[in-house]
Amino acid sequence: MSSTLPAVPLPAVPMTLEGASVLHQMMKVKWPAWRALPSARQQELAAEAEAVLGDGTKSAPFAMLGHKADLMLVHFRRSFEELAQVQLALSRLGISEYLETVNSYVSIVELGLYESTGKTYKELADRGVAVHSEEWDKGIEEVMQRQRAAMASRLFPDIPTAKYVCFYPMDRKRGEEKNWYMEPLAERARMMSEHGMIGRRYAGAVRQIITGSIGFDDWEWGVDLFAEDPLVFKKLIYEMRFDQVSADYALFGTFFVGLRFAVKDLCPFLNGQMPQWPAS
Amino acid sequence: MSSTLPAVPLPAVPMTLEGASVLHQMMKVKWPAWRALPSARQQELAAEAEAVLGDGTKSAPFAMLGHKADLMLVHFRRSFEELAQVQLALSRLGISEYLETVNSYVSIVELGLYESTGKTYKELADRGVAVHSEEWDKGIEEVMQRQRAAMASRLFPDIPTAKYVCFYPMDRKRGEEKNWYMEPLAERARMMSEHGMIGRRYAGAVRQIITGSIGFDDWEWGVDLFAEDPLVFKKLIYEMRFDQVSADYALFGTFFVGLRFAVKDLCPFLNGQMPQWPAS
Amino acid sequence: MSSTLPAVPLPAVPMTLEGASVLHQMMKVKWPAWRALPSARQQELAAEAEAVLGDGTKSAPFAMLGHKADLMLVHFRRSFEELAQVQLALSRLGISEYLETVNSYVSIVELGLYESTGKTYKELADRGVAVHSEEWDKGIEEVMQRQRAAMASRLFPDIPTAKYVCFYPMDRKRGEEKNWYMEPLAERARMMSEHGMIGRRYAGAVRQIITGSIGFDDWEWGVDLFAEDPLVFKKLIYEMRFDQVSADYALFGTFFVGLRFAVKDLCPFLNGQMPQWPAS
Amino acid sequence: MSSTLPAVPLPAVPMTLEGASVLHQMMKVKWPAWRALPSARQQELAAEAEAVLGDGTKSAPFAMLGHKADLMLVHFRRSFEELAQVQLALSRLGISEYLETVNSYVSIVELGLYESTGKTYKELADRGVAVHSEEWDKGIEEVMQRQRAAMASRLFPDIPTAKYVCFYPMDRKRGEEKNWYMEPLAERARMMSEHGMIGRRYAGAVRQIITGSIGFDDWEWGVDLFAEDPLVFKKLIYEMRFDQVSADYALFGTFFVGLRFAVKDLCPFLNGQMPQWPAS
Amino acid sequence: MSSTLPAVPLPAVPMTLEGASVLHQMMKVKWPAWRALPSARQQELAAEAEAVLGDGTKSAPFAMLGHKADLMLVHFRRSFEELAQVQLALSRLGISEYLETVNSYVSIVELGLYESTGKTYKELADRGVAVHSEEWDKGIEEVMQRQRAAMASRLFPDIPTAKYVCFYPMDRKRGEEKNWYMEPLAERARMMSEHGMIGRRYAGAVRQIITGSIGFDDWEWGVDLFAEDPLVFKKLIYEMRFDQVSADYALFGTFFVGLRFAVKDLCPFLNGQMPQWPAS
Repeated sequence: MSSTLPAVPLPAVPMTLEGASVLHQMMKVKWPAWRALPSARQQELAAEAEAVLGDGTKSAPFAMLGHKADLMLVHFRRSFEELAQVQLALSRLGISEYLETVNSYVSIVELGLYESTGKTYKELADRGVAVHSEEWDKGIEEVMQRQRAAMASRLFPDIPTAKYVCFYPMDRKRGEEKNWYMEPLAERARMMSEHGMIGRRYAGAVRQIITGSIGFDDWEWGVDLFAEDPLVFKKLIYEMRFDQVSADYALFGTFFVGLRFAVKDLCPFLNGQMPQWPAS
Repeated sequence: MSSTLPAVPLPAVPMTLEGASVLHQMMKVKWPAWRALPSARQQELAAEAEAVLGDGTKSAPFAMLGHKADLMLVHFRRSFEELAQVQLALSRLGISEYLETVNSYVSIVELGLYESTGKTYKELADRGVAVHSEEWDKGIEEVMQRQRAAMASRLFPDIPTAKYVCFYPMDRKRGEEKNWYMEPLAERARMMSEHGMIGRRYAGAVRQIITGSIGFDDWEWGVDLFAEDPLVFKKLIYEMRFDQVSADYALFGTFFVGLRFAVKDLCPFLNGQMPQWPAS
Repeated sequence: MSSTLPAVPLPAVPMTLEGASVLHQMMKVKWPAWRALPSARQQELAAEAEAVLGDGTKSAPFAMLGHKADLMLVHFRRSFEELAQVQLALSRLGISEYLETVNSYVSIVELGLYESTGKTYKELADRGVAVHSEEWDKGIEEVMQRQRAAMASRLFPDIPTAKYVCFYPMDRKRGEEKNWYMEPLAERARMMSEHGMIGRRYAGAVRQIITGSIGFDDWEWGVDLFAEDPLVFKKLIYEMRFDQVSADYALFGTFFVGLRFAVKDLCPFLNGQMPQWPAS
Repeated sequence: MSSTLPAVPLPAVPMTLEGASVLHQMMKVKWPAWRALPSARQQELAAEAEAVLGDGTKSAPFAMLGHKADLMLVHFRRSFEELAQVQLALSRLGISEYLETVNSYVSIVELGLYESTGKTYKELADRGVAVHSEEWDKGIEEVMQRQRAAMASRLFPDIPTAKYVCFYPMDRKRGEEKNWYMEPLAERARMMSEHGMIGRRYAGAVRQIITGSIGFDDWEWGVDLFAEDPLVFKKLIYEMRFDQVSADYALFGTFFVGLRFAVKDLCPFLNGQMPQWPAS
Repeated sequence: MSSTLPAVPLPAVPMTLEGASVLHQMMKVKWPAWRALPSARQQELAAEAEAVLGDGTKSAPFAMLGHKADLMLVHFRRSFEELAQVQLALSRLGISEYLETVNSYVSIVELGLYESTGKTYKELADRGVAVHSEEWDKGIEEVMQRQRAAMASRLFPDIPTAKYVCFYPMDRKRGEEKNWYMEPLAERARMMSEHGMIGRRYAGAVRQIITGSIGFDDWEWGVDLFAEDPLVFKKLIYEMRFDQVSADYALFGTFFVGLRFAVKDLCPFLNGQMPQWPAS
């Protein structure tokens, strides 16, 4: 192996694992039109929708607070093609006449390997492997495969079963002075690690799923938080806002907050009753 | 107790108490469709709505000025689940055909304990308690419990009965140079205290309820002001705008201003008559 | 009287007089639906609206240019309650089926007393009066009362009768470097005075009414200009834009420009004919 | 004449000539509803519209690319009153049921006399004429009258007959550091002159009409470009973007691009056929 | 030939080749109305649309993910006039009643010749050719012609046949400090070359088509990526974001992601079934 240093600088992009394809659909219910339907027709339409949504592990409904949406459907799938299939399958249903999809988010479950990245890049460089050479790519892929196997359940999870959900998209700022993408990898890794410390203290109370959406939707990441007590969302995000990575570099989109209910309770929900969760 | 200093710096986040869950619903009335209803049907629909809204202490209607909304409903509840219930209960009513919810705000009554925070953190640190240790958390929780008890009526208040309301959401700026979340806690506490001084001079004329919405809605806080004379809103907010905390760090959303009326006067309001307040 | 200096700095907020409550309503006409009405019904509906609008001195209609509105109604009233009454009274009319209110502005006639403010604050301070003491407030109120009496006709004016109107809302910038609210009062007074000089040269050609909307609507001020020649709007605003107070600190919202017509000409206007003004 | 220097600095605003009043109307066609009409009714409605639009020299239709508009009508008139008349006349037509005006722009043909301005101000000042004195205003007005006469055909032009149009609104930036309105007149004149040089090289290929909209619409200027080859729009604007005046100070609104057609071809256009231009 | 140096500086604008005229149309399907049609009518309407779209090489349909669009049609044509023709031809079809065009993008295939530009400008200048002289223009045109011939197939390509598409518009930043258009040509060329390096590593996995839209639409460029695996979009764009040209100077619009299907599968798609691709 060559002892000369690589001609190009080490890559700036962190190693990243991708998993499930995710679609959030935010919908408004056309309440008066639904109300006007005979009960039998309501049940028929709800049953058709339930058949598409399944048992709630891969497609789950949430009752949303505020006017931004009445209903949010979250879908976890193996591929974008499967997402397209479920989106189209819902569109063709009779119930689609009573639901208007007013917002959405397309993304992929993502685990950023900030810690391994620096180590792996350095190791390969120390061995004299040229950046982006075949050997380099092989070295990277080996690490990724190992991690992918170790984190399979986090990459392709079921939708968590907590009572409350909080979803929002976010960007890293590229300002004229504060520019995340111009910070050295080590500095970004340090800030992400500090950020992760806070998350760890909330680990028992909140489950977080990060999805990446660069190239797929209008923000760079989507964040889903799941908890039994919605106050935890506020406490966690407020505390994180004082982190350097959030204080200086986070830009936030629209926040959605809602309550989980069972697929089988779609009809009562549409008739204005907040279903129990966990469902009886 | 250990005499060594804590390994991590004191937290930046201020201690914060949370109370009632709050939903603002801004609605446009479909005037011509309502007008076309027979009077008996109008009264029936209004009566159904009044049954959901109750006596006005926890759900109150306001007649709004301008095109942003005709009607605002404000709901104070014990939990997000109760908010979801009232939102769904209203959606299913016959009157929902005549009301379009065009805006909303989801938040929780919040009291920021800037003053106690610095003192408590210092005290615990001086006693050598490690930040985020079990003992630390217990120390914090004790102070919070004491304050929660002392401020119970401010955390779970009835909706104030003043004639006029002013509602707006706001953020603290995270600019490239002026960044609230990068200011030291002591500096933030100093600015908040100056800010509070102004509020105190208006205490007799205006009642202020701050709600936090980080993780719940698109701004960080919502502000409700209640007064008998709407000019007070302008004078108070204008004077505050020269404060450092507002001048440098406040970002404001949309302003809503309206007049209170009694739940039982919903039908006259929808028929174009501004009800007396207090109601006869 | 005490000879010690006040403990707190002189206030930053200028003394400000408030007058009439003002509502601008920008509406789109549903032309085809109106056109489909029999002429007798059109006249009936217009007559109902004319009864609410009165003689044009306190509620005036304008034919607007462009797609942002077809019709603008401007209302000057004694209070927000009266504004709510006229807004509701219009909503309940049959004509409301043919008009869609797409924009609005809620504000109060305002006269900023920049010149007196510095003088008054200094005088009181020189006399050793403590800021915000009872004596201070009394001293301020005396000056305000005197000015309120002297400017009564400017605080509660009729709507000017010029042929053209120009309306726009505006803010004073709070940038990271250029921040109006962090400038000393004397500096703001100097800039406002320079600004006023330009206005004075246009005094014969344009009538300006400033309304304040902090706490009431989404911008800090609304500006109405009235002139017989619309070119004057362009010349005045363009010249002012080079003023320091505008160049550095003014942020502008949407501009609306239109032509006055008489309340009694509402029906011809809705039938597509631009009425003469002054009305014959 | 006095030999003392003027007490006030020379004005910052450039001398500016104004000409025709201009209205751009961007419309969407309600294709299915139009399609459902019997051919005779279509011809009747188109004929009514053609009577209002005239021979195409003062009101011209364009077929637009993309979803922002299907049809753009551009009107050049002698006054805002005439613009209001044509806007209202179109609104009342039967065809208005099939057209939705989704955007518009209100402005006045403008020629900025940057070159003469510096010379004229200096000349008057050298003669000791006090700024804004009667004599000053007379001196300015004399130059303006001379230029107005010389440029009459550019101030009140027919709508150019080229095959393609490009319209967009723009502002000059008032940033915290780069602020057009704080640049000295001589510096602005120098930048505008450099800018004009580029335009001159394109003179044979593109006709440019600048309209001013300060006080009339939401941007400061509107730009219409007319050319036989749409590529010229791209080349000209791209090249200009590297000018200091554009690179540092230009802010651009929405771009509209379309193809001219004859007023008499309105009906074929509405039936989905792109008419020939020049019309046969 | 003269040995004197050109009087004006070398142009800042890079030489640029233009090719096909491109229209992206993003549409929402009115699912319930389509569903209500008898199957024979659906097939008739789809057949009419297929006749306009042709064999898919110049007009291709994509099934989109999320609420921003259900269907995207991409058209490559020889001129804007042909784009206008296809847009109008689609508008007049019966199927247009079931499709709402909610977004679009108008642009022209563009190849920026950054590398040749510096060389060509220097060569001409070294030969003493005056900038913008006839000889200069001839020299430039010669190079352009040569390149145009060499790149004909990239300038007028068929629509790539990959399974997935990603489209987004973008600008180069003109900030107060970071201003692309104020960077010297050589510096821009250097950054673009670094940027191109990354693209080259993805060449086998993704096909990129850049279109220019200065003067045509609201952003400066449109980017289409085509790939068999959508993950590649994310990886490529994420990696590029750390480039100086993207990190400092790129501003991104809305992202659209979708799956190709065959023109002949329009009817199954509208009936809610994701067609196979490549089509059987």
